[in-house]
Amino acid sequence: MLKLYGYYRSSAAYRVRIVLNLKGLAYEQVFVHLRRGGGEQFRPDYVKLNPQALVPTLDDDGVVLTQSLAIINYLEETRPEPRLVPADPAARARVRALALAVACDIHPLNNLRVLQYLKDELDIDEDARNRWYRHWVELGLGAMEQMVAGHPATGRFCHGDSPGIADACLVPQLANARRFGCDVGVCPTLVEIDRACADLPAFRAAAPQNQPDAE
Amino acid sequence: MLKLYGYYRSSAAYRVRIVLNLKGLAYEQVFVHLRRGGGEQFRPDYVKLNPQALVPTLDDDGVVLTQSLAIINYLEETRPEPRLVPADPAARARVRALALAVACDIHPLNNLRVLQYLKDELDIDEDARNRWYRHWVELGLGAMEQMVAGHPATGRFCHGDSPGIADACLVPQLANARRFGCDVGVCPTLVEIDRACADLPAFRAAAPQNQPDAE
Repeated sequence: MLKLYGYYRSSAAYRVRIVLNLKGLAYEQVFVHLRRGGGEQFRPDYVKLNPQALVPTLDDDGVVLTQSLAIINYLEETRPEPRLVPADPAARARVRALALAVACDIHPLNNLRVLQYLKDELDIDEDARNRWYRHWVELGLGAMEQMVAGHPATGRFCHGDSPGIADACLVPQLANARRFGCDVGVCPTLVEIDRACADLPAFRAAAPQNQPDAE
Repeated sequence: MLKLYGYYRSSAAYRVRIVLNLKGLAYEQVFVHLRRGGGEQFRPDYVKLNPQALVPTLDDDGVVLTQSLAIINYLEETRPEPRLVPADPAARARVRALALAVACDIHPLNNLRVLQYLKDELDIDEDARNRWYRHWVELGLGAMEQMVAGHPATGRFCHGDSPGIADACLVPQLANARRFGCDVGVCPTLVEIDRACADLPAFRAAAPQNQPDAE
């Protein structure tokens, strides 16, 4: 049985939930509350699974995996149907670049631990922290928009007319963008793709507000 | 002919140089100076290739690729010899998680553009910026140390006794760590692996100080 350690608001866990759902895989959830009691991710039993003290972690019958994109790749390799990464190497690289544009260049800057450091160590006030948040989101989504708008491979989804790993990274990032009042007017094509994803039960079931640990 | 757009000090470009060298691939370098004239990465002709205005970009006979890890995956798929990712899915996930621990959780926080934002927009002084830098490096490398130290798959390199993509991410990160005076005592196993990499011409030839654009 697949066991996902996550948190409803973690956008990295959200990516993995989408992929599990798209592949129709049953999984058990273990909730790691990132804010309660100083953060449950720092508990010794969890850190033993995930030394980075981050979510998600996936346990596949004793094979313990960390890092959302590594987990997603593993699922793609071990449960290849339906395919979430195209077959052609150049197309695969395009899809991966989009996923990484979220996972490397937007999300890490706006992670909970980073916002906490800005507040606690650098004494940055809430307004400036929100400007920081919006800066990286709008810069990143604006660039991604240039990667998809008018590109011949862009379809109803980031790549063609079926959802894939780029969409699984995009949708959680857009949800966060909206939560923090970012201007998603910078990325109309991505907003359209997000709307197409919202039509799919796999994406809806993965949304933070639909998780058992949602507050 | 492969053409790599990079900058000697970019640790993401450095990863790709290592992989190109490990695979014995000839490539032409195009230098994108990240500090000169407000940043050559913002020039319209470069942004057309790489809408994120980041390095590296790889041009493979007209196929334009961005994001270092997507480029590395593409090279692994199109030039599979020597193999830089193991064959087994769980092992692949382990190697990818290590690469992503650098690429998602250390490097993006210490990128030039982030340090510039801390300085210019948040008025953070040099001492505090250096503390920020060291905080994320030492936290990240310390966690990675727990992922490799004593792990049965760790060998002379991050995974076994031949170098791979995790090493190609680790070495540039350790070079940056040293440049900024971080405490690499938090990761003795990684330091050993780095030393093994330094013995290989592929790694040495990729080092920033050995690039034609080094200053």
